[in-house]
Amino acid sequence: MIFTQQWIGYRIVDGVREKGFSATVPGNIQYDYAVAHDFPDVMHGANCRLFEGLENNTWEYRTVLQFEKHEGERVYFVSHGIDYRYDILLNGRTLLSREGIFTPVDLDLTDELVGHDELCVRIHPHPKRADADYGRSEADHSCKPPVCYGWDWNPRLLISGMWQEAYIETRDADDLGMCEVRYCLSDDLSRADVEILTSCASDCLITLTDAQGEAIYCGRKKRFSVANPQLWWCNGQGTPYLYTWKIENAKHKQYGKVGFRRVRLVRNTGAEDPQSFPKSRYDVPFTLELNGRRIFMKGTNWVNPDLFWGRITAERYESLIRLAKDANMNIFRMWGGAGPCKSAFYELCDEYGMLVWQEFMLACNDYPDNDHYLSVLKEEATAIITALRSHACLAFWCGGNELFNGWSGMTDQSLPLRLLNSLCYELDREHPFLMTSPLVGMGHGGYLFYDGSTEMGGDVFQVFARSSNIAYTEFGIPSMASIELLEQIIPADERFPVRETESWLLHHGLKAWKPQSHVCPEILEHYWGEPKSLSDMVEHSAWLQSVGYLASFEEMRRQWPHCSAALNWCYNEPWITAANCSILSYPDLPKPAYFSVQSALRPVMFSARIPKFDWRAGETFRAGIWLLNDTQSAVRANVKVLLRIGAQTIPLLTWEGAEAAVNSNTEGAQVCCVLPHVDADEMTLCLQSENGLSSSYRLLYRCPVPEEKRTRTMNQ
Amino acid sequence: MIFTQQWIGYRIVDGVREKGFSATVPGNIQYDYAVAHDFPDVMHGANCRLFEGLENNTWEYRTVLQFEKHEGERVYFVSHGIDYRYDILLNGRTLLSREGIFTPVDLDLTDELVGHDELCVRIHPHPKRADADYGRSEADHSCKPPVCYGWDWNPRLLISGMWQEAYIETRDADDLGMCEVRYCLSDDLSRADVEILTSCASDCLITLTDAQGEAIYCGRKKRFSVANPQLWWCNGQGTPYLYTWKIENAKHKQYGKVGFRRVRLVRNTGAEDPQSFPKSRYDVPFTLELNGRRIFMKGTNWVNPDLFWGRITAERYESLIRLAKDANMNIFRMWGGAGPCKSAFYELCDEYGMLVWQEFMLACNDYPDNDHYLSVLKEEATAIITALRSHACLAFWCGGNELFNGWSGMTDQSLPLRLLNSLCYELDREHPFLMTSPLVGMGHGGYLFYDGSTEMGGDVFQVFARSSNIAYTEFGIPSMASIELLEQIIPADERFPVRETESWLLHHGLKAWKPQSHVCPEILEHYWGEPKSLSDMVEHSAWLQSVGYLASFEEMRRQWPHCSAALNWCYNEPWITAANCSILSYPDLPKPAYFSVQSALRPVMFSARIPKFDWRAGETFRAGIWLLNDTQSAVRANVKVLLRIGAQTIPLLTWEGAEAAVNSNTEGAQVCCVLPHVDADEMTLCLQSENGLSSSYRLLYRCPVPEEKRTRTMNQ
Repeated sequence: MIFTQQWIGYRIVDGVREKGFSATVPGNIQYDYAVAHDFPDVMHGANCRLFEGLENNTWEYRTVLQFEKHEGERVYFVSHGIDYRYDILLNGRTLLSREGIFTPVDLDLTDELVGHDELCVRIHPHPKRADADYGRSEADHSCKPPVCYGWDWNPRLLISGMWQEAYIETRDADDLGMCEVRYCLSDDLSRADVEILTSCASDCLITLTDAQGEAIYCGRKKRFSVANPQLWWCNGQGTPYLYTWKIENAKHKQYGKVGFRRVRLVRNTGAEDPQSFPKSRYDVPFTLELNGRRIFMKGTNWVNPDLFWGRITAERYESLIRLAKDANMNIFRMWGGAGPCKSAFYELCDEYGMLVWQEFMLACNDYPDNDHYLSVLKEEATAIITALRSHACLAFWCGGNELFNGWSGMTDQSLPLRLLNSLCYELDREHPFLMTSPLVGMGHGGYLFYDGSTEMGGDVFQVFARSSNIAYTEFGIPSMASIELLEQIIPADERFPVRETESWLLHHGLKAWKPQSHVCPEILEHYWGEPKSLSDMVEHSAWLQSVGYLASFEEMRRQWPHCSAALNWCYNEPWITAANCSILSYPDLPKPAYFSVQSALRPVMFSARIPKFDWRAGETFRAGIWLLNDTQSAVRANVKVLLRIGAQTIPLLTWEGAEAAVNSNTEGAQVCCVLPHVDADEMTLCLQSENGLSSSYRLLYRCPVPEEKRTRTMNQ
Repeated sequence: MIFTQQWIGYRIVDGVREKGFSATVPGNIQYDYAVAHDFPDVMHGANCRLFEGLENNTWEYRTVLQFEKHEGERVYFVSHGIDYRYDILLNGRTLLSREGIFTPVDLDLTDELVGHDELCVRIHPHPKRADADYGRSEADHSCKPPVCYGWDWNPRLLISGMWQEAYIETRDADDLGMCEVRYCLSDDLSRADVEILTSCASDCLITLTDAQGEAIYCGRKKRFSVANPQLWWCNGQGTPYLYTWKIENAKHKQYGKVGFRRVRLVRNTGAEDPQSFPKSRYDVPFTLELNGRRIFMKGTNWVNPDLFWGRITAERYESLIRLAKDANMNIFRMWGGAGPCKSAFYELCDEYGMLVWQEFMLACNDYPDNDHYLSVLKEEATAIITALRSHACLAFWCGGNELFNGWSGMTDQSLPLRLLNSLCYELDREHPFLMTSPLVGMGHGGYLFYDGSTEMGGDVFQVFARSSNIAYTEFGIPSMASIELLEQIIPADERFPVRETESWLLHHGLKAWKPQSHVCPEILEHYWGEPKSLSDMVEHSAWLQSVGYLASFEEMRRQWPHCSAALNWCYNEPWITAANCSILSYPDLPKPAYFSVQSALRPVMFSARIPKFDWRAGETFRAGIWLLNDTQSAVRANVKVLLRIGAQTIPLLTWEGAEAAVNSNTEGAQVCCVLPHVDADEMTLCLQSENGLSSSYRLLYRCPVPEEKRTRTMNQ
């Protein structure tokens, strides 16, 4: 039996416990405190700064335990995770001291109970390495997710507390314990050998039911086989088929879902040895093979969906996951700066067919080889692996973000990463493990629509057409929030012109990464001159982000099968930013670019390789026309290509009977025309087809000296 | 007490045991059989083929046990390793069945003994994967070292048997068991925290003595500290300082050596992130840091020193190790095709200051993810790691040879390599671990003096000057054996002209790798036209190998600190080859190139970067002059550079007061002159200095139309 408790929170200042306040579990104690003390809206202006005053406090949750206990039962305090360094005291006596956020608590209180019992969870101040600079490196000797120390889209806002469910549980001798269903698929996928893990000593009845409610197995053996199982497929490749398992004895029942599938990372097509001596090695294997089928990973980078993780609900996850599925995505990269989500997230991904690339909570830091850190990491990683390894959605493990880059400084020899490899091997060798992203051949960045600072720059149309990575696992283009959201976060007197006021700075509008990020006024000015209004800026930055993501995702898909993945940075955001590379505004509001990404990731579509974004009258416009297909059916379709400039429509090409084989792209002809002089400031390349295969690209057009005579050339 | 036994060997053919023969332990049963049956010299002609007839037999070693047992003692059969799949039977009853070559046997026979006991070690036929092609891939599902299935310098000659020591040991209750001394150095290297591992339950006295015989510690604690320990250094960097430990109780003693040092692999200088987006990662860390000092790895690839490993003695190892030390080397790469040596090898390397890069027994195959293979590999690797981890000479572990190249096909996700990383982490995290060589940035090859087949080819002077690898961990130039050795192995009627006879083919003279390898008549002809005699060929190929290794090693040293290692392929050979890239002929005879390598690896020396090997009269000759220094002292020296062609000596440069800082190289001026017309067919660039810093390079010179007038230009 489970008994939820009522908790009172306390802030301890200089050893003195302040007046208590109502604390929500799951939740974050700083949030509870802010609510109780009428903090103004954290989203607005510089209000998030108020939390800085709470950084170095100790906190307590207290409750007088409420539960009923029957003869022979034992009483446990259970929590799915407490953030971060804490003691658990019963009637003033410390029963457990621990460091970590993901390791569950399962504490037998029985022998300590006196009848009127006060439980206290005391949370110590956030870890901060003494000699570290202010920022994420303060967390580089701990397993505290570094994102809350400040990132270029997350303000510094340090949270802690009982972020996961916590309750009192009474258990009798027949308790089932933690049940887990493991399986092994035969090489040809025609048989699943299932094994039930349970700590229950007594006899259990085990039932496996298919999605139609038909019992596939019912018996008392803990090992059995399923012949010809329905396989679990990710979004776009088939049904995310789940079976239901039930384990029961005379008194207890547990339910869960299991999806049968096999995941591998195999060598990318064309990942060959260097041709000449001295020979190095081929690129790392990064093509996802699901149930023996090579799949292009279309997805995005997931970040913590809230500043206050504790209050995230399954509904919030579901809304975000559904939007990703609707955008034709098949994978989330769970970026290491924040670490794993609550279990509801993975259950929903199982159901929606969203694959999960799961990172551990290491990012952009040089985590040390020291024994204390390694022992905490071992405990935390063990908890994570054990909790997630049986989810159908799990694609592979990854040590963390950008650890083999100059700003981090770890290497293949770093013991934390060797430990993670070792644990994943030992506890879950069915899933691949990467030490970090990017590895050799994979690429991160850029994060601007246009970069004029280097020879290898240009706009995103140019950058990615020139790249030949095996995977693009981060790339970003920022846009500003909508006017409505900006009005919510930036005080009226700071809004325009955009400048380095506290609100713009705190909301990552300027100096978030590059001096001009993420509003990037320089880039807007490069294309449209000095901005006339905030709404002009918002409109233009949305345009750049939309067409930029369209061009990037489609280019990466055209590079299949050498390239096997395109995941933009990033999907969502933890609060309302003034500007960000995300395609959703907080909490789950699609930006215009969301719809471009949705378009660029359609399973079958016509696509254009366009050399650049901005064009001038008189220039020769060219574009290569492709038919993209990542389905298991061959496709055949027709397309008309035309260019619209102002009132003019220029037919460029008709491609009849374009064909693309299963999971393949076909390159068609290249269109070409000299751009006429038209009184317009944009043009649209249209690929007109049927059955949802049409595409269009809104490009910049300039006609500096409008001419009477409208030039027009066609060349099919 | 140890009791050696007399063994009789038996060949089993079609289930029938043939007449017995005397078997030597340690040894190889096929060798014993050959001796007993008067096989002709295995080195000569095609005699090695005779062993093919023994490939599929079962073998037995039998002995009637001889030992004395006191009251209360137990009786063990001990072996340090038996090759490869075997049963151990006592009086006809199977006590142990095992697969593996490195896992020791420690078998308590006591309760099975009857008084007159026959022990039998039955060796099963060599593993051969059923559907594999003839050759190394037959061993790709087993831990049998693949080299004996045939390599381009090792004939196919499959051996097995009791290759390591084996004996009967009686033990009382106070037996010390396996003792091991582990330690941890403080970050600043000023303190070693020592821990004694022993399975002995009774109280032991522990003594640690320095090299002068002074006791540093004497007591009964199993953990103690040594303040300011003398550190162990590799050859060229200091003394390979060893302490002696002694563990004793009332009845028993064990001795051993321990050297205190810390080894790391750190990022190479200049291993930076890519400059532009999308960014991948920096190169793998491959600069050896010994006791905090960055060291250039100068060394070579060690292969099995005999076809019959069982008969290799400590004396044979010592002769080879001393030659490497004398050649100014500091590291051996223990190539994975053969796996580890006997323990004497590592004890000698500890003593001589030779670092050891130890690979597991995987090479050029795609080892599978299957459970049986993984379980054997786990047992074997555990034995290897445990046996070698405490040796001062051990630099780092490596999964095996060229596993991430097209001809092997493994990846970072291959479970055997993840298992090895995991085991090394668990049992010996003090040493780095590489999955394979080469990794990103490292280079293997080429293996020819001259390659005209690709654009990136040319002679070795050109190839390596153009390369910018972080390490050259294999590169080879072949030469022929001496006339005396060729007479020993090639029957007189086959010797000249060199052609595809059985002896030349079997001894790797032709078609060993490339069609012309390793004699490479095409390359000799490219420089000198059609060969007139065998001795001409031998002389020319020795010249190419000598000057080629000189140029290559020196070029790699000049690329320090971006490049951190130069190890030629290979050092030694297991039998007399007709031609090979080794610098020693079997068993330990220096080829002329040995002395070039010795010269190229002097700690301090003048060195010339010469653009190519062959020159013509009238061409402009150039060379860059360098002072190389990998010592811990700054150096200052003078050098005169001159060119000798026939009777002419052309002074080119005097560089007075050249200076090189600690562990650094200095580039001086470039010399330049138009080559005169002289009646000569070679020329020598001489760098004349004092104190052993002089160098010289013998180059090809051609003067097709000798002229009366001798042109000479000087330009300093």
